[in-house]
Amino acid sequence: MSVSDEERLARLALSQILEPGDHRIAGLVHQLGGIGLLEMLRTGEHDLPRLDVAARLAQLDPMRQLEVGQQRGMRYVVPGDPEWPAQLEPLDHVAPLHERTGCPPGLWVRGPVRLDTLERSVAIVGARAATTYGAEVASAVAADVGRAGYTVVSGGAYGIDIAAHRGAIATGTPTVAVLACGADRVYPPSHRRLFEILAREGAIVAEVAPGLPPTRLRFLSRNRLIAGLARGTVIVEAGRRSGARNTASWTSRLSRPLMGVPGPVTSAASEGVHRMLRSGEAVLVTSGEEVLEMVGSAGEFLPREESAPARPRDLVTLREQQVLDAVPVGKGARVDSIALTAGMSVLAVQDALRILEDRGLAVLAGDGWRLTAAALQAASESNR
Amino acid sequence: MSVSDEERLARLALSQILEPGDHRIAGLVHQLGGIGLLEMLRTGEHDLPRLDVAARLAQLDPMRQLEVGQQRGMRYVVPGDPEWPAQLEPLDHVAPLHERTGCPPGLWVRGPVRLDTLERSVAIVGARAATTYGAEVASAVAADVGRAGYTVVSGGAYGIDIAAHRGAIATGTPTVAVLACGADRVYPPSHRRLFEILAREGAIVAEVAPGLPPTRLRFLSRNRLIAGLARGTVIVEAGRRSGARNTASWTSRLSRPLMGVPGPVTSAASEGVHRMLRSGEAVLVTSGEEVLEMVGSAGEFLPREESAPARPRDLVTLREQQVLDAVPVGKGARVDSIALTAGMSVLAVQDALRILEDRGLAVLAGDGWRLTAAALQAASESNR
Repeated sequence: MSVSDEERLARLALSQILEPGDHRIAGLVHQLGGIGLLEMLRTGEHDLPRLDVAARLAQLDPMRQLEVGQQRGMRYVVPGDPEWPAQLEPLDHVAPLHERTGCPPGLWVRGPVRLDTLERSVAIVGARAATTYGAEVASAVAADVGRAGYTVVSGGAYGIDIAAHRGAIATGTPTVAVLACGADRVYPPSHRRLFEILAREGAIVAEVAPGLPPTRLRFLSRNRLIAGLARGTVIVEAGRRSGARNTASWTSRLSRPLMGVPGPVTSAASEGVHRMLRSGEAVLVTSGEEVLEMVGSAGEFLPREESAPARPRDLVTLREQQVLDAVPVGKGARVDSIALTAGMSVLAVQDALRILEDRGLAVLAGDGWRLTAAALQAASESNR
Repeated sequence: MSVSDEERLARLALSQILEPGDHRIAGLVHQLGGIGLLEMLRTGEHDLPRLDVAARLAQLDPMRQLEVGQQRGMRYVVPGDPEWPAQLEPLDHVAPLHERTGCPPGLWVRGPVRLDTLERSVAIVGARAATTYGAEVASAVAADVGRAGYTVVSGGAYGIDIAAHRGAIATGTPTVAVLACGADRVYPPSHRRLFEILAREGAIVAEVAPGLPPTRLRFLSRNRLIAGLARGTVIVEAGRRSGARNTASWTSRLSRPLMGVPGPVTSAASEGVHRMLRSGEAVLVTSGEEVLEMVGSAGEFLPREESAPARPRDLVTLREQQVLDAVPVGKGARVDSIALTAGMSVLAVQDALRILEDRGLAVLAGDGWRLTAAALQAASESNR
């Protein structure tokens, strides 16, 4: 199914006259189509009293917008396009948050990554006021996610967002930034170089029309798209009031895996994450590997086996351990003295000592049995 | 009910001939009494083939042990004594771990804190190889617990144990150390000063007889007592192989609250805690307050209300927010221009602007409406 030019332009017009994620029209674009909804707004047959679309409609020139956008390297992707990310569609059916919800009528995209490939993607977001710890962890998780063939989706902000992009890009994996402003804008300006990389190798995505500035409501609307595009969301750091908690709520609303990376409890930057973990809203993850276990298809990423190397002391039975505890460190002891200390029979102790000798943990030297250096080393590692 | 001298001495004798927590005799002391169990061991009517009690029995002089212990400031507390901690009794009914389980026949105690007061206590344990972060958090949690009238119970080891004791003691609250060696020993020796404080103001508790050294099995046995004495256990740091994980398992076996303090995922010292949190074995806590919510009686400690101060911008409705987003920062704008930007009717915008003016967020100055410094400040704090 291909999309008519008229439908594409109608949706583009809608993106210019409506604030993104307006809950009052959620689902209407899907039901009426862009052409139908635009017509409804044009003829005034609606109960959106405060939404004075007339003034905006008068200024519309969607064809010109499309041309300008294309000149700036952007395409306008709508449902029906092969590239359209179907995973956004559940947004039409989730309860509003801050009066935002709904699948967008279309998305502006700048950069070669196709949106339909984001079916295999992980959102990594967090505080702008990230700590170096948070930034390091975000980069490391993003790198693991990228290497596994999943695309990292984030915003374009300072802190965790940029760290996530950088971590994945460093492994040669393109990333996707979803913005609260037009996809042609660079906000914040200091991220110009990142945005150039994304435009060349990844993608910059926006629901709002080119040229529009970010606003607080647009951030809230944008967050639903980050959660909606990705298969799951990882929150690396979030203060009590971080916008990342809003993205987390969208993820929960969409019943997708929400993961949180803990941090020091003394760090305000981790406070919001710890709350989500305490409430059970988010699952604790400590590595990209654990993230992939959560978002991967069944059997795609299996938890790594407990792989701590077996040490000689680990192979010792409790009965042998009881004997080992009775073997002296310095001057050797006779088997009957060890039996007395261990509270076991001489024969049982003798059996155990032979096994411990085989393992290199006890040695019979002249005057009696004593511990080996290996046994002392093992003991110092495992006692507490 | 008072305990006969004969029963006390029988139990004391048992503590000298049996390794602590031997699962084969769990429940037998309770069923037969100390006198009965000792008699059974003496007459050989038992199937403990490797437990050569005869050699140990021959050396026994429990009366002398009691005198020596008392000379060193210790008392031997047994069931029936008013001080006996009844919360240990469930240990007779939990499955063995490393072949250890069971309520001890009695406990050696050095120091004025009575064991029956530990019904209101919290165990705080963790890695010996603690980080400064872990030590700080352990101290802070212990201080909160102590101030709330709960006693901190821990071991006597380096790292988290000692940090927990110090944190509580610094607030003037005595603490209790449960040792894997005799209660008269100082292990490790560098904790001599702490042990002196505990002997004077807190308590040092041991199941094994005075003079006996710690062994690996005695540590495993000791851990069940820490978990068994306290109302809940907090693990502050634990590596993959930390003994604190053993104390955690005892807490779970006893169905008491097990809590874990997260840390940086880059820290090996937090790895064991993160595993417990991921598996759901432990509940994430970030403060002493949250620990007290878990262990307190119903209604004793209530979660603190979300107490972030309301800021002017938080009181703004979404409709007002939409207008606020359209108000310029620099040169003022007329109401019709703002209405166009906001996509709302002029009248609705006018209403909203008056409210925003009252809140100190927008101001009408000559040429038009613009944002106030307060609005900009709020925006920079909350956008992401």
